[in-house]
Amino acid sequence: MTHKIAILGASGYTGAELVRLIATHPQMEIAALGANSKAGQRMAQVFPHLRHLHLPDLVTIDQIDFAEIDLCFCALPHKTSQEVISALPRYLKIVDLSADFRLRDPAAYETWYGNPHAAVELQKEAVYGLTEFYRDQIREARLVAGTGCNAATGQYLLRPLIAAGVIDLEDIILDLKCGVSGAGRSLKENLLHAELSEGYHAYAVGGPHRHLGEFDQEFSAIAGRDVHIQFTPHLVPANRGILATGYVKGEAQAIHAALAAQYDKEPFIELLPMGETPSTRHVRGSNYCHIGVVADRQPGKAIVIAALDNLTKGSSGQALQNANLMLNIQETEGLLMAPVFP
Amino acid sequence: MTHKIAILGASGYTGAELVRLIATHPQMEIAALGANSKAGQRMAQVFPHLRHLHLPDLVTIDQIDFAEIDLCFCALPHKTSQEVISALPRYLKIVDLSADFRLRDPAAYETWYGNPHAAVELQKEAVYGLTEFYRDQIREARLVAGTGCNAATGQYLLRPLIAAGVIDLEDIILDLKCGVSGAGRSLKENLLHAELSEGYHAYAVGGPHRHLGEFDQEFSAIAGRDVHIQFTPHLVPANRGILATGYVKGEAQAIHAALAAQYDKEPFIELLPMGETPSTRHVRGSNYCHIGVVADRQPGKAIVIAALDNLTKGSSGQALQNANLMLNIQETEGLLMAPVFP
Amino acid sequence: MTHKIAILGASGYTGAELVRLIATHPQMEIAALGANSKAGQRMAQVFPHLRHLHLPDLVTIDQIDFAEIDLCFCALPHKTSQEVISALPRYLKIVDLSADFRLRDPAAYETWYGNPHAAVELQKEAVYGLTEFYRDQIREARLVAGTGCNAATGQYLLRPLIAAGVIDLEDIILDLKCGVSGAGRSLKENLLHAELSEGYHAYAVGGPHRHLGEFDQEFSAIAGRDVHIQFTPHLVPANRGILATGYVKGEAQAIHAALAAQYDKEPFIELLPMGETPSTRHVRGSNYCHIGVVADRQPGKAIVIAALDNLTKGSSGQALQNANLMLNIQETEGLLMAPVFP
Amino acid sequence: MTHKIAILGASGYTGAELVRLIATHPQMEIAALGANSKAGQRMAQVFPHLRHLHLPDLVTIDQIDFAEIDLCFCALPHKTSQEVISALPRYLKIVDLSADFRLRDPAAYETWYGNPHAAVELQKEAVYGLTEFYRDQIREARLVAGTGCNAATGQYLLRPLIAAGVIDLEDIILDLKCGVSGAGRSLKENLLHAELSEGYHAYAVGGPHRHLGEFDQEFSAIAGRDVHIQFTPHLVPANRGILATGYVKGEAQAIHAALAAQYDKEPFIELLPMGETPSTRHVRGSNYCHIGVVADRQPGKAIVIAALDNLTKGSSGQALQNANLMLNIQETEGLLMAPVFP
Repeated sequence: MTHKIAILGASGYTGAELVRLIATHPQMEIAALGANSKAGQRMAQVFPHLRHLHLPDLVTIDQIDFAEIDLCFCALPHKTSQEVISALPRYLKIVDLSADFRLRDPAAYETWYGNPHAAVELQKEAVYGLTEFYRDQIREARLVAGTGCNAATGQYLLRPLIAAGVIDLEDIILDLKCGVSGAGRSLKENLLHAELSEGYHAYAVGGPHRHLGEFDQEFSAIAGRDVHIQFTPHLVPANRGILATGYVKGEAQAIHAALAAQYDKEPFIELLPMGETPSTRHVRGSNYCHIGVVADRQPGKAIVIAALDNLTKGSSGQALQNANLMLNIQETEGLLMAPVFP
Repeated sequence: MTHKIAILGASGYTGAELVRLIATHPQMEIAALGANSKAGQRMAQVFPHLRHLHLPDLVTIDQIDFAEIDLCFCALPHKTSQEVISALPRYLKIVDLSADFRLRDPAAYETWYGNPHAAVELQKEAVYGLTEFYRDQIREARLVAGTGCNAATGQYLLRPLIAAGVIDLEDIILDLKCGVSGAGRSLKENLLHAELSEGYHAYAVGGPHRHLGEFDQEFSAIAGRDVHIQFTPHLVPANRGILATGYVKGEAQAIHAALAAQYDKEPFIELLPMGETPSTRHVRGSNYCHIGVVADRQPGKAIVIAALDNLTKGSSGQALQNANLMLNIQETEGLLMAPVFP
Repeated sequence: MTHKIAILGASGYTGAELVRLIATHPQMEIAALGANSKAGQRMAQVFPHLRHLHLPDLVTIDQIDFAEIDLCFCALPHKTSQEVISALPRYLKIVDLSADFRLRDPAAYETWYGNPHAAVELQKEAVYGLTEFYRDQIREARLVAGTGCNAATGQYLLRPLIAAGVIDLEDIILDLKCGVSGAGRSLKENLLHAELSEGYHAYAVGGPHRHLGEFDQEFSAIAGRDVHIQFTPHLVPANRGILATGYVKGEAQAIHAALAAQYDKEPFIELLPMGETPSTRHVRGSNYCHIGVVADRQPGKAIVIAALDNLTKGSSGQALQNANLMLNIQETEGLLMAPVFP
Repeated sequence: MTHKIAILGASGYTGAELVRLIATHPQMEIAALGANSKAGQRMAQVFPHLRHLHLPDLVTIDQIDFAEIDLCFCALPHKTSQEVISALPRYLKIVDLSADFRLRDPAAYETWYGNPHAAVELQKEAVYGLTEFYRDQIREARLVAGTGCNAATGQYLLRPLIAAGVIDLEDIILDLKCGVSGAGRSLKENLLHAELSEGYHAYAVGGPHRHLGEFDQEFSAIAGRDVHIQFTPHLVPANRGILATGYVKGEAQAIHAALAAQYDKEPFIELLPMGETPSTRHVRGSNYCHIGVVADRQPGKAIVIAALDNLTKGSSGQALQNANLMLNIQETEGLLMAPVFP
């Protein structure tokens, strides 16, 4: 059986990545591509790398007949997403890739995003889309909120350690290095090639990054108490990839064991042998996440490192994995392609 | 039915690319990975991006039982390849990715490669592996010689124009820009990141590049007379991609028509609308080749441009496409993944 | 004696490059920095790499007292430049980096730029700023028009060959590869890092590139007849650098001799030994231009290649070299820094 | 007065960087270039970007007449350096860029480098080359040991904080991102462009990196007690640059004040306004170091970040700064060039 799929926000990078993945998915067919600002164009004009596919032309969201759609991916900007989804049929299965439904608490949402939530009821209904930890709820969900790409990476590293009680909750530091595509296809001076290439820098230093809202929500829920990690993202001159280096206090062996217990049967999470560490280049273009653990020279301290592709496992691959669950398709369908290296 | 596949030279980039492609091929199974210099290692050590796959360990070529193999890819260095293939069973289907069997004439081989050919009989048997032009022979072949990656790109551009008689054969210039992975995984100072990145240069200027041997052989055969093009490759700081800019004398409309007639039904060759030109970033990681034609401001001159991924359509993707034909599998099987952008 | 310098358009890349060069120039002092859109900001905010310098804040052009200025660099966009310069005092020495005064013929200007020239008298007065060929006029000039960066590269290659009569004027092809900074600091989707890096493509194919206007003007003047070359620029993922590959018909030895005769005493033009070719990485950040000549395998054809840094020798370095001449300073002052490699 | 300079190890990146800097130094002249493996070659062959300079050819170290040399830079590999320097005249002023004389304690040297020191007397004589903190001793020194490039960056960040007693000494984490040129011009698979570009990873995780020996030595000396920081370097796909992100416990204002007090009059260390952070692209090719401080959202925690160019301020620029002091030249001579951006 083939499911009919709509993608809203098809002119952005996560939209294009969804098309790339679904292009070879045997049980999905792209029936509509919404992109208000580029409506009327062919996808080959907006993303020439998809030229070989037979795709519907871009249309405005108004032009889509959702009665024919089995599942809709929303890859729209924050805030726009909640407005658009509010207006969609209530029976429609939706995977949202924006930040709008990640935080369950309306007050937390307002704190981190600076405006009241416009769809509080939907916010309650939404299931947090970190597949490996919300799999059963996602299977039953109508609306799934894709996680932040940095938030996913950090949680893959730290959730099992917090749950297993093997690290000190007061001193968790996450130093993260991310590629450029995470910032999207927006016209900002600091995203120009001449500005970005050949250099690197930290940003959102000290706590303002919104993905901290997700860390606070999730880690505190697991621990049953407030957990506030320290988080510094850095922008690195590569298009894809997130490398998260975690500094924790605990025994490396216990940490490795906790990760092994959690991820033993997971199809996309690869725990490296003790002492080995991952690289973003080895997950590029794929849905895999590699995790490594190393003991520090100082007893009682450890370094944990995770790598994934922000556009795939960090957003569109995760979204497809969740959609597979929601449509009762094999979870890994369309997602088993190997990374592209070199 | 699943065919058992061996890959010799599995520790190089084209070997790894074959594994990447075959990993999701429904009718092939990798039964043996040969790599004399790294025998005994796991593939995950040599190529960590393939860690998630269940692959046989690397072995020496001697250790492989070829009686169990249905088809063997040889991704070995030039000269080594002809020695190794000479020693393989004569019934074994082989796709060779080296330069050893590309030139049909032993004298031409010796001219371009500087040594006499050590397997002249095999050389006679080998079919030139440019799929779209040798499809019927490849289907029946036992030994197929993969083309040079630059040679493939240039031929996709120029063969239809020579065959159709729409360009002047005396003045064909091919200015080619290729990515770094084409040089392989060899330890050379000029391939270091610090040497290569942030700059670009021409190499093998004036005629010494060995892929000219293929151009001379093929273009002269088509034209029924000697054709000697001018060819300058340039090395560009990107890992994958070949962009070939051809300067020809002829009418752009007739040129576009000749390409359209040739490639109309081809699954992997995309001819762009008149006046549009391709980019390597839009074929990256895929088996597609994009071709464009533009008329010059001076009447009677035109520019033709082709882009493909040297590791995929330029070598390992081409090899798999040929193997599919040789094993009577759907030609496009395992090769329809979309390019990875950005 | 220290000369007081104003730079208009100081928030763009050529403006910043002028500041970088003048920062260690012993006989110049930056007295005013004009940038209408960023007036009121400190240079350290607009270009943090210049933070260590004691520079005037950015102001609107209106706020500058030109009575105190000895020489003014105009690094403004095309069209804006002619308007601004028209309003400046007629005694002021000016080096313009825009395209506005490069073409001497108002009709040619209108053809290439699509609008009538608004300062035809100034256009007559302006001297073309290719230092090595207009040195004496530049020394006496009040208004010097900096050349296009691609136009400079191509002329360094071809002018001596046309002047010496050693190549066929009917068949000159210039295949040029340029870095990203040549497009300036403008917000365009195709200049984003995620769009540009890891790929390369041709643009302005077939003749529309405006630097062809300069080639036509200059080459025809030298030859005493119409000369129209074929010119294809390509965008390459590196920030700085132009590599121009010229395909000409002539004897390589005669070509090398003509270049040697021309550039023998030039401080910034390095002719490589016969058969060697240059790389952009070896001129990066410097005012040097490297040129090489190779004979093709086919008698009577040759390849000539030039490399320079588009922001330095291709624009701001050229501008400073001209300013030195106009102010009767040693021509090489402030320009002898070695390239930055790796 | 012009001082005659020898550079041993002129075929490596720090050797070439010394030549680049000295090329425009008004009081130094390069009299000898030693490079045993490439003796007999011209510098233009080994480093074509230095082609325009009139330099002596490369010779073996034996061939150099040190009686004519005023100061010798040793840019040789570790271990080779101590052997070569032992054999040089005892009166010769030497700036060593290797690791051989950085650690004062022979036992510490053996622990970190795995072999006993072969020149213990010289080790005692050597002055640690972190200019801003050893300026007076360097002025009087005969033998100065250049610091590790990572070690320099971390010390610029942390020394003033430890000395001022404004941070907790038990919990100092340094997460460092460095460019590729720091690994030198050695032929290693993991330094190839195709391996390194488009990805990033941590290395030497958990404590084995030798620059920790310098941190331990220096920080413990300042604190008057053992201080052992946690240190994780990461390799990032850019040629130049070190970005060091420090996680410390202390009040951000006090930290900023301690840095301001230390660096107020330093010509090359730029402390950014509170809350701003640096980027490697803004120091590239220069001798400047930019430092920033941000308070974390959790009281009592702060992030401190430093950026410098590993080849300039991190090694060859530092070496020249020290040589200026040793020869009684203005300390900043030859080092005031602005960074190259973009």
